Amino acid sequence: MIEISASDQYLTASPDSLLLDIYDALPAGLYPPFPPVELPGGLGGLVSRGGFAQTFFFGAEVLGLTFVAPSGRRVVAGGRTVKNVQGYDLTRPFVGSFGALGYAETVTLRLRPGLASAHHSRPGTLEDAIGSRARFLWQDGETLHAYHFGHVRDVESVMAEFGGTVHEGTLDYRSMFPGGMGVGQGGPLRDRRFGWQSGSAVPEMPAFFARVAASI
Amino acid sequence: MIEISASDQYLTASPDSLLLDIYDALPAGLYPPFPPVELPGGLGGLVSRGGFAQTFFFGAEVLGLTFVAPSGRRVVAGGRTVKNVQGYDLTRPFVGSFGALGYAETVTLRLRPGLASAHHSRPGTLEDAIGSRARFLWQDGETLHAYHFGHVRDVESVMAEFGGTVHEGTLDYRSMFPGGMGVGQGGPLRDRRFGWQSGSAVPEMPAFFARVAASI
Repeated sequence: MIEISASDQYLTASPDSLLLDIYDALPAGLYPPFPPVELPGGLGGLVSRGGFAQTFFFGAEVLGLTFVAPSGRRVVAGGRTVKNVQGYDLTRPFVGSFGALGYAETVTLRLRPGLASAHHSRPGTLEDAIGSRARFLWQDGETLHAYHFGHVRDVESVMAEFGGTVHEGTLDYRSMFPGGMGVGQGGPLRDRRFGWQSGSAVPEMPAFFARVAASI
Repeated sequence: MIEISASDQYLTASPDSLLLDIYDALPAGLYPPFPPVELPGGLGGLVSRGGFAQTFFFGAEVLGLTFVAPSGRRVVAGGRTVKNVQGYDLTRPFVGSFGALGYAETVTLRLRPGLASAHHSRPGTLEDAIGSRARFLWQDGETLHAYHFGHVRDVESVMAEFGGTVHEGTLDYRSMFPGGMGVGQGGPLRDRRFGWQSGSAVPEMPAFFARVAASI
């Protein structure tokens, strides 16, 4: 299930939605908070891991979700418009909690407008691109990727600074992660937050968060 | 305590900081996620109530905070840059939880750039301004206020649409709320989220959130 509101600039989708299927479903000029690559677990996996490759705060792009807590209870978190934001919002703890708060049933993401987009790649590492204004940056082995959308001139300028060449086609990284997409520096992909490797390794969970997870 | 990083566009301040003192401390061209009005409880009260008058999602503007939970435990939530966002983030539940998760010790807010700002007022109600692009809109009795910052032309255009006249000086609403700033439709102020009245009334708390609050 992928439902798009172009006028209000959000989408609501089931967690099994593939990331590239979401790209295909979007009308021209609206973009989601992830690059056009396929990753393990589709949208649900992406949200559980706190996004991929973004250089902005991903948590703010998840407007709301419903999830089933470890206790089996269903939680409705967040909303779609400022009027729905009443507080008591568990959206952000769920995002990037690597499953500790349960599993999502539906996810609502903010969409952002852009008149153009571009995907470049070049040899390099994330450290080479510390000042880049690209919305998404990731390193695949010894290749650095940048994806950006926005005004035409903005996209041109970001890509001119980044260098490299136009990357044709989309990427499917799922086969890199036969054991699931876990964190760790030894793996094939990196973004500004984590190294990503096959397996189920997650960041260390603070004690207070474990108590929250057990309480819901 | 008010510490400002102009280069990284954030401020960290103690919860007792007055909102107008924060405005006074900011360098030209950087703006906080609240309008230049004084409200009960300073910055800590503002964050606890989930902001005031914003037409955007306030929770995303709070980059991180430290708070003391009802149990007495100290919780560090969120960060300042995308690299610090490791997940397991209790920032958003704290924002707008009306004290249920305890009290803040420090608050870090995103600052946004603007070349100009303007504050207009006119007779009217929030319902008259549904389509307004002003960043802040609030109704004080039968007077509607709009505050906006951004590019010069953007500010001019938003204020031309809003109408009214330039509001001179700053507003101090603290004396309207001798019993604290609570929610309720009978009070003197309204924004898109709530009516605000003197007292300690808060929005109804979902049962799952009460369990979370008791767990931390």
